[in-house]
Amino acid sequence: MSKAFSFEILASEGNARVGRLITPHGVIETPVFMPVGTQGTVKAMIHRLLEEIGVQVILSNTYHLYLRPGVEVIELAGGLHSFIGWQKPILTDSGGFQVFSLSRRRTKDNRSGVRVLEEGVEFRDHLSGSLHFFTPEKVIDMQEVFGSDFIMPLDECVEYPTTYTYAQASVERTLRWLDRSIKHKKREDQALFGIVQGAFFEDLRRYSAMATVERDLFGYAIGGLSVGEPKEIMYAMVEVVCEYLPWQKPRYLMGVGMPEDLVECVARGIDMFDCVAPTRMARTGTLFTSQGKINITNEIYKKDFSPVDEECNCYTCRNFTKAYLRHLYKADEISAYILGTVHNLSFYHKLMKDIRTAIKEGRFESLRRSWTV
Amino acid sequence: MSKAFSFEILASEGNARVGRLITPHGVIETPVFMPVGTQGTVKAMIHRLLEEIGVQVILSNTYHLYLRPGVEVIELAGGLHSFIGWQKPILTDSGGFQVFSLSRRRTKDNRSGVRVLEEGVEFRDHLSGSLHFFTPEKVIDMQEVFGSDFIMPLDECVEYPTTYTYAQASVERTLRWLDRSIKHKKREDQALFGIVQGAFFEDLRRYSAMATVERDLFGYAIGGLSVGEPKEIMYAMVEVVCEYLPWQKPRYLMGVGMPEDLVECVARGIDMFDCVAPTRMARTGTLFTSQGKINITNEIYKKDFSPVDEECNCYTCRNFTKAYLRHLYKADEISAYILGTVHNLSFYHKLMKDIRTAIKEGRFESLRRSWTV
Ligand SMILES: [Zn+2]
Ligand SMILES: [Zn+2]
Repeated sequence: MSKAFSFEILASEGNARVGRLITPHGVIETPVFMPVGTQGTVKAMIHRLLEEIGVQVILSNTYHLYLRPGVEVIELAGGLHSFIGWQKPILTDSGGFQVFSLSRRRTKDNRSGVRVLEEGVEFRDHLSGSLHFFTPEKVIDMQEVFGSDFIMPLDECVEYPTTYTYAQASVERTLRWLDRSIKHKKREDQALFGIVQGAFFEDLRRYSAMATVERDLFGYAIGGLSVGEPKEIMYAMVEVVCEYLPWQKPRYLMGVGMPEDLVECVARGIDMFDCVAPTRMARTGTLFTSQGKINITNEIYKKDFSPVDEECNCYTCRNFTKAYLRHLYKADEISAYILGTVHNLSFYHKLMKDIRTAIKEGRFESLRRSWTV
Repeated sequence: MSKAFSFEILASEGNARVGRLITPHGVIETPVFMPVGTQGTVKAMIHRLLEEIGVQVILSNTYHLYLRPGVEVIELAGGLHSFIGWQKPILTDSGGFQVFSLSRRRTKDNRSGVRVLEEGVEFRDHLSGSLHFFTPEKVIDMQEVFGSDFIMPLDECVEYPTTYTYAQASVERTLRWLDRSIKHKKREDQALFGIVQGAFFEDLRRYSAMATVERDLFGYAIGGLSVGEPKEIMYAMVEVVCEYLPWQKPRYLMGVGMPEDLVECVARGIDMFDCVAPTRMARTGTLFTSQGKINITNEIYKKDFSPVDEECNCYTCRNFTKAYLRHLYKADEISAYILGTVHNLSFYHKLMKDIRTAIKEGRFESLRRSWTV
C-alpha cells in the first residue's frame, strides 16, 4: 500500500469514531456518507452541486461502468476520475452485489441471470441479456483501469433468507476470491478492502470477519446486509463483525442506509456508508427533514410557502418553498429531481457532520438518543 | 405605464439595434433570447445555473400556470416571481398559442379542443380534458396576479396554411380582444405588448401592424410565425411587420428560433426572442456548436475526449468531454439533460452577446454573413 493512504482516528466515544482518511485524491473526514453515482454520475446531480454540498467521496459501480461506457473508453480517457471529471476520491464497488441481484430476475427467455462457479460468476446483464463472466482477477483489472481510490474484491452476496450451508460455502468462496484478488492486484495507489459476508448467522459473520482480517487489508467492508432483513438483525450483525475488526482500520458498511441506520451503525463503529436512499427517494418526492420524512407531492403542501426544512441551509431550502417544489414534482419537471436531491444529500451531509462534531464533543450518545425517540 | 419601464436604443446597424430595456425586476440588454420556463421552471435547469449563464429574462406561460399550480396558489405566494423564486424579469405568454394548438389535437372522446367565440375561447385542456373558457379580460387578470413584467393579450393564432378570409377575421378579432385587454388592464407595473397577426398574407400583416401600433403599447410582438412555414416566408413577414413598427419601441418575435433565425431577424429589427429549441433539443442530445449542430449520442463521440465546443466557456465545456456526455445520454442520466441544456443556453447567450457587440462595433453584417455561408 502506498503512503498516499492512511487512516487516523481523531476522536471516539464508545465504539463511534471520528477519523481522517487520506487518499491520493484528498482527505475524507469520517464517518462519511458516500452518494451513489452508479454510472459515473450521481443521479439528478452535476458535480459542482455535489461539491457545494460538501460531498467528499462518491461511489461508482464496476458492473455498470463495464456495461456502459465500457472499460476501454475509461482507459482511453485516462481513468475514471478523468473520464467523469471528478477529482475527489472515488470508491468503486466490485459489481458483485449487482451481479448477484440479477439472480432474482429472469431474462426474457426465462433463464436465471447468474451461475456461480469457483472460477468466477457467469451472468446475463440487465440491458441486453448478453452473457458475461467476471472473475476476481478481471474485477481487479477493471478497477485498476478505473484508478478508483478504494476498490472492492468480487464477493458473493447471498439472498435473504438463505441456508446455513449455502452461506458457509459462500463465505469460503468469498475468501478464496479475496486471496486471488490480493494476489492479482498490482497498482500501489489504490486501497483494496476485504468484504465480510456470512448472511445472518453470527458465527459465520464472526468467522468471515476474523478470516478477512487475517488478510491484513487497508480497510474492511461489511456486505450482504440491508437486503430485506429486520433492522435489529442488521444492527446485530454489524455489532458482531465490528468486534472482530481492528480498531485502527476503516470500516465500510455497504448499501446502508436510512438516517437512523447511519446513527446506529456509527454507534457500532462504522466509518463509511453508501446508499441510494437519499437520491432515489428524492426522485419520488420523499424528502428528509429534521421533523421526519415528508412526501412533497402531498396535497397538504399545495399552499405551504415554507421551506422543506427550516433547519436546512441547502440551496433548495434557502430559495424555494414546499408549494413550488410540489408544483415541480406534480408537473414532472426535472428541476424537481435536482432540487429534491440537493436537499436530501445536504440532509445526509449535515447529519454526518453533526455526528462527527458530536463524537468530538463527547455528546454522540445524546445525538443518538434524539434519533431513537 | 409606470416609469419603471423604458426602452432606449444604444446603437444600431441597418435595422439591427442594441437596446436597454428597463423593468421593475432589472435591466435587459437587447437583442435578447428568453429561455422558456413554461411551468415556472426552465426544463432541466435550476435558477442558479440560468443566472450563471447570464440569462436576463425568462418566459412562462399563462395557460400552463393556470392549469398547474393554479392561479390561486400563485396569488397566495405573492405573485410569480415570489412563487418560483426568480427575481429577474419574467414575460408571460397569454396562453393563446397553446390554446389554439389544442385545436390540432383531439380529446379522448374525439372532440376538438377549441371553440372560438367573440367573447373568448372555449377549450379542453391537454391534461384532464376538462372544459375551460378564456376571455381577454381573464387572461389579463391572471397575468396581473402573476405580476410578470411583460404580459401578452389573448390573441388568435391561426394554423398554417389558412385561408385569407379566416386570417382576416382573426386579425380583426385579435384587435378587438386587444382593445378589451387594454381597457381591462389595471396594474401600472407591467408592460402589455400588442401582438401582430395576419398569417402569411403581407397586406394582413401590414394592416395588423398598423392597427396594433395605433393602440400605442409599450412594445409589439409578432405572433403566428414559425408554425411550419418555410424560413424565407417567416423572414419576409418579419420584414414587412418591422417596417410598420415604431423604431423606438421593443419588438418581440414569438417562438423563434434557431440560431440563424435569431441573426436574420435581428437584422430585420427584432429585439426579443423566445424558443423551446435550445432546451428541448438539449434533452434529445442535439447540441449547438460553433461548427454546427451535433447529436452527442452519435457513436463517433464514444472516444472523443474533447469538449462539445472548443469555443464555448460554459460549465459543461470547461469540465466534461463529448465521450462522457455521450455516456450520460446513452445511460439516460438526468445529468445529461442538465449539462446539455447548460451548454445550449450558453451557446444562445453567447450568440446574443456577440450580436450586441457586433452591432455596437458596426460589424453585425459581417457576423451575419458568417452565419449564412
Ligand atoms: Zn434543504
Ligand atoms: Zn458549452
